[in-house]
Amino acid sequence: MKDCIFCKIVRGEMPSSRVFETEKILAFLDINPVSKGHTLVIPKTHYAGFSEIPADILTEVGKALQKIGHAARTHLGSDGFNVLLNNGRAAGQLVDHAHFHLVPRSLGDGVMGWPRVRPYGAGEAERVRSKLAEALS
Amino acid sequence: MKDCIFCKIVRGEMPSSRVFETEKILAFLDINPVSKGHTLVIPKTHYAGFSEIPADILTEVGKALQKIGHAARTHLGSDGFNVLLNNGRAAGQLVDHAHFHLVPRSLGDGVMGWPRVRPYGAGEAERVRSKLAEALS
Repeated sequence: MKDCIFCKIVRGEMPSSRVFETEKILAFLDINPVSKGHTLVIPKTHYAGFSEIPADILTEVGKALQKIGHAARTHLGSDGFNVLLNNGRAAGQLVDHAHFHLVPRSLGDGVMGWPRVRPYGAGEAERVRSKLAEALS
Repeated sequence: MKDCIFCKIVRGEMPSSRVFETEKILAFLDINPVSKGHTLVIPKTHYAGFSEIPADILTEVGKALQKIGHAARTHLGSDGFNVLLNNGRAAGQLVDHAHFHLVPRSLGDGVMGWPRVRPYGAGEAERVRSKLAEALS
């Protein structure tokens, strides 16, 4: 897409710190890292949302995330990693070209914690479950 | 695996609120939800870490996450969603059976924010990039 910042990176019209690529996907350092080695993995083709990504690209992205997670351990000394995807403004998606964050982690680094639990009220879990199950049946 | 809580859920030895399943994957409500419809998607086979998941299962998991994210929008009224994977204790993985969180989000819900940015020092981004690129070449 002409004005998409990630498409410009794919085309080489904007600089990026590339760490890995295949014919279909590209991985480069996030310019606003929350930890050392924080990397974005994107399909080279423009898909605005996660749900638009075709199955074969999902697989490629998944395999790249596995490789980068392993490389962060062996070459950056990290102890683990998070994979995050934000889909939609409500979820914090800022660039409308679907992208996965791989965030290398070290024990006790305090990079991110787990959100506060918001328990279901009486009967609510079953109502939510049945709505989702119905949609997915 | 005999004592794995998620394997017990797969085998039906522990209760769960199932929302979707295929031959290879299972999706059920998280018992500690951070938002309504917070769902876990797991391979039915026990893989401790993300990196051990075979490509065909990665694809199945990805497709399930797409479907559940869509269902959360159409049937729960959410505006977006996050996908999260915690790999290793340092990243907050509590159950050693690889699992993806799908967290439905609504505008302004305050469920989770973005971690503090930790900028690279002079030359550091290029050192990190070259280490990762070397490991991945």
